Amino acid sequence: MEFSAEMIASFLKGEVAGNKNSVVTNYAKIEEGKNGDLCFLSNPKYEHYIYTTDASIVVVSDKFSPQSEVKATLIKVEDPYKAFADLLVLYVANKPQPEGVSEKASISEKATIGENNYIGDFTVVEDGAKIGSNCKIYPQVYIGLGVKIGDNVTLRPGVKIYEGCVLGNNIELHAGTIIGSDGFGYAPVGDSYEKIPQIGNVIIEDDVDMGSNCTIDRSTMGSTIIHKGVKLDNLCHCAHNTEIGENTVAAAFLGVAGSSKVGKNCVIAGQVGIVGHISVADRTTIGSLAGITRTIKEENGSYLGFPSIDSNLFKRIHVIQKKLPDMYTEMRTMQKEIAKLKETIEKFETK
Amino acid sequence: MEFSAEMIASFLKGEVAGNKNSVVTNYAKIEEGKNGDLCFLSNPKYEHYIYTTDASIVVVSDKFSPQSEVKATLIKVEDPYKAFADLLVLYVANKPQPEGVSEKASISEKATIGENNYIGDFTVVEDGAKIGSNCKIYPQVYIGLGVKIGDNVTLRPGVKIYEGCVLGNNIELHAGTIIGSDGFGYAPVGDSYEKIPQIGNVIIEDDVDMGSNCTIDRSTMGSTIIHKGVKLDNLCHCAHNTEIGENTVAAAFLGVAGSSKVGKNCVIAGQVGIVGHISVADRTTIGSLAGITRTIKEENGSYLGFPSIDSNLFKRIHVIQKKLPDMYTEMRTMQKEIAKLKETIEKFETK
Amino acid sequence: MEFSAEMIASFLKGEVAGNKNSVVTNYAKIEEGKNGDLCFLSNPKYEHYIYTTDASIVVVSDKFSPQSEVKATLIKVEDPYKAFADLLVLYVANKPQPEGVSEKASISEKATIGENNYIGDFTVVEDGAKIGSNCKIYPQVYIGLGVKIGDNVTLRPGVKIYEGCVLGNNIELHAGTIIGSDGFGYAPVGDSYEKIPQIGNVIIEDDVDMGSNCTIDRSTMGSTIIHKGVKLDNLCHCAHNTEIGENTVAAAFLGVAGSSKVGKNCVIAGQVGIVGHISVADRTTIGSLAGITRTIKEENGSYLGFPSIDSNLFKRIHVIQKKLPDMYTEMRTMQKEIAKLKETIEKFETK
Repeated sequence: MEFSAEMIASFLKGEVAGNKNSVVTNYAKIEEGKNGDLCFLSNPKYEHYIYTTDASIVVVSDKFSPQSEVKATLIKVEDPYKAFADLLVLYVANKPQPEGVSEKASISEKATIGENNYIGDFTVVEDGAKIGSNCKIYPQVYIGLGVKIGDNVTLRPGVKIYEGCVLGNNIELHAGTIIGSDGFGYAPVGDSYEKIPQIGNVIIEDDVDMGSNCTIDRSTMGSTIIHKGVKLDNLCHCAHNTEIGENTVAAAFLGVAGSSKVGKNCVIAGQVGIVGHISVADRTTIGSLAGITRTIKEENGSYLGFPSIDSNLFKRIHVIQKKLPDMYTEMRTMQKEIAKLKETIEKFETK
Repeated sequence: MEFSAEMIASFLKGEVAGNKNSVVTNYAKIEEGKNGDLCFLSNPKYEHYIYTTDASIVVVSDKFSPQSEVKATLIKVEDPYKAFADLLVLYVANKPQPEGVSEKASISEKATIGENNYIGDFTVVEDGAKIGSNCKIYPQVYIGLGVKIGDNVTLRPGVKIYEGCVLGNNIELHAGTIIGSDGFGYAPVGDSYEKIPQIGNVIIEDDVDMGSNCTIDRSTMGSTIIHKGVKLDNLCHCAHNTEIGENTVAAAFLGVAGSSKVGKNCVIAGQVGIVGHISVADRTTIGSLAGITRTIKEENGSYLGFPSIDSNLFKRIHVIQKKLPDMYTEMRTMQKEIAKLKETIEKFETK
Repeated sequence: MEFSAEMIASFLKGEVAGNKNSVVTNYAKIEEGKNGDLCFLSNPKYEHYIYTTDASIVVVSDKFSPQSEVKATLIKVEDPYKAFADLLVLYVANKPQPEGVSEKASISEKATIGENNYIGDFTVVEDGAKIGSNCKIYPQVYIGLGVKIGDNVTLRPGVKIYEGCVLGNNIELHAGTIIGSDGFGYAPVGDSYEKIPQIGNVIIEDDVDMGSNCTIDRSTMGSTIIHKGVKLDNLCHCAHNTEIGENTVAAAFLGVAGSSKVGKNCVIAGQVGIVGHISVADRTTIGSLAGITRTIKEENGSYLGFPSIDSNLFKRIHVIQKKLPDMYTEMRTMQKEIAKLKETIEKFETK
């Protein structure tokens, strides 16, 4: 795709400064801009790059006035960062999209498939499954018995959805993600363990995104629920009977153990663990590598460490922890001093 | 499937109180029971739900006597929790099971396949592989050259078993789990690394279950061994030449580094790491996010933290750690007081 | 394959002591050697096994002189460990290799495929993809639109490479690894989040190996880069716009958050987290379960803990931490003693 400065300015409702016939075919970061690239200058600390870049067009703030000569054509807009995101969306929307149902897919005659879907090679859709419309089901996906999938759902290559799980609309699951594997439920019988059958399912509500190689287990009974608007990064794990509240976001390697409920609008950093059978209040922030070991009732808290504590306290402790070896030595010194003082005083007393 | 109260009571050897012709088609938690649902009341703290539930049938203890009117039909049994598990097993056993060998699978003529197996679409079985009987091999599974698989083995969609690995009987591996990828063995050569070929395999003994997206590496020579009765949750990793002892259970994200041996009947919580070339005694309990950094010889120990220590000591330290900022301040105060006392005493002495 | 002592000695430029017609068909560890096995004695602490082993041939140092009778044929070489690695390489190279392009693969006519490749069943190669020569693409792999792959690349079963990613030469990716899934980029819009399209790609340079179920995300713009010679273990995650420097090695569960750069020749243990937007200097060593939370500028450092600190300091703190409960008690004692001393002195003063 080739775009002229004039076309872009018109789309962004911006103003061209320079050659309005300049054309670009690609995006680039301003520090890497080459001829034919479209770049953005949003953060003032990168301003110096604009005087040396080989990019053909740079989108800048309408407040920007160059301190020296700029080779690139400029497009001035109110908010360059927003303009950047808008153009990315336009770019992606204009890319050719995969379409049609592959003859190499294995689709049960007892499945119900909506319209305008892409279903790739070697994908399996089992009996009783229902797929809405405008979905993109990439190759090598597995959609089990009776699975329900809404509209505008994208399942990347190799996603597996077990029997009976339910997905809403506007969902994207990245490659290798597994929905509905059995919850980890065993009852001890002597020295060994007997499996507790897991007959529930997983419900994924609208507007949920998951990264690659995540695992969301079905519940023992009832449903494991990933609520509306949740965004999970790669390699996240939600155990049986968990719930992740609306609009909560979590970075990679989140582990939520069985039956725990995470609230709405939480922000969870990477490699966080949440033990089983607890709940985490809405709008909780959890720092990376933290382990939440008990219910958090108060909203808007921020936690770090294992077992996690208030993050400010954690930081203060961390600073002082580094002084521990010195504290230990000083304490020994103090003990000696106290002993000496005692001795001196005893001498006085016996005088 | 539809079951009457009479049928269920007869299976559970229980007694019906209420309409013995009540029918149910589904399980539910008592707090979510609707018309047509079968529920259980095992934990007395949920008793209040029984007076309001819309469930059609509730299984209760034969010691239970209602404090007010109950709409549902009751089935009285000795142990409602055990009855629940028994019925779940019955329910799962009665579900229609996938069967037959798909024509869309690619099965080598040089493979040996037993009887009464299900092999799904797009599954690959390579030369020399041997599969027992009563197995369920779901779609998109890969079974490499010469792999041996026993009876009653379930491999969920997308499981991959590399060449030469050996699985016993009564095993279930969930979707995306990888058995037999190369161990992470490299020899430094100057600044770069040369791969040490990994020519061993993985042996998985009887009655082992693994969750989804686990990775078990083949050994350099000999075998990585997952012993009888081990249960691993999702996203667990066992490196080359490791062994996990009989009936050990581990929650998600376990990482066992090369050549380490975990004992029998250990209980391992989530996100635990075990460094390489050590061993962990039988019946060890390891808390979540702990890192085991040295051999544990004594059985029945319990560990937390990194590097992990006795879990009681860990908890005591954690309590006092929160007082560290105060301790630091108090210590400074004490130092001043000692200095003042010294001064005072010196004045005495010079009097 | 069957090899005689004479053939092996000739390959290793070693000398036979014993029956030069002894034959072996398999490798084994010396403690497990059976008739027909080839073993190695490199570490003197295993010497005692050589007097009892049933192995047919043992490779030993040319400095080794037996203290009692040895049944096995010996092959004496300068460096038995190097000889072991050389023979493993020979063994692997001599194994029959999969070959040919399966008719059950789905390969676009608009893809370019080199020579002497193996492409397995149910693998998908999309339009515009380019695959070099001497590659082994196992079954159920997905190679997206316009992906470029060099020579001597091995992709194990179920690997997924998204659109536009670029792989160099001599690369091996193990089963279930995902290259090029979307970076985790969202902009908050009120209480919910809007996805920032991820239009970059992933570049994997020559000589890179990855374990199974790794996830490497494409960048927002530009490229996520795994540089030449990097070796990643299973279940590692590199977020969008990250770079891993040449010859860096990392054990399982590494998580590198968005836009961070890890230097060259770093050695990273298991379950390490690196936060976003920082850089880690060349030749840094990071211990297991550590969390790197800020840029490391100095090369050759060694880090442990969360937030990670110098590993020697960490170890000193850890030792003293175990004394914290005692320190707390002693401090209380000291406070009482100081109070008593004060009292005593006050009495003196008022005399």
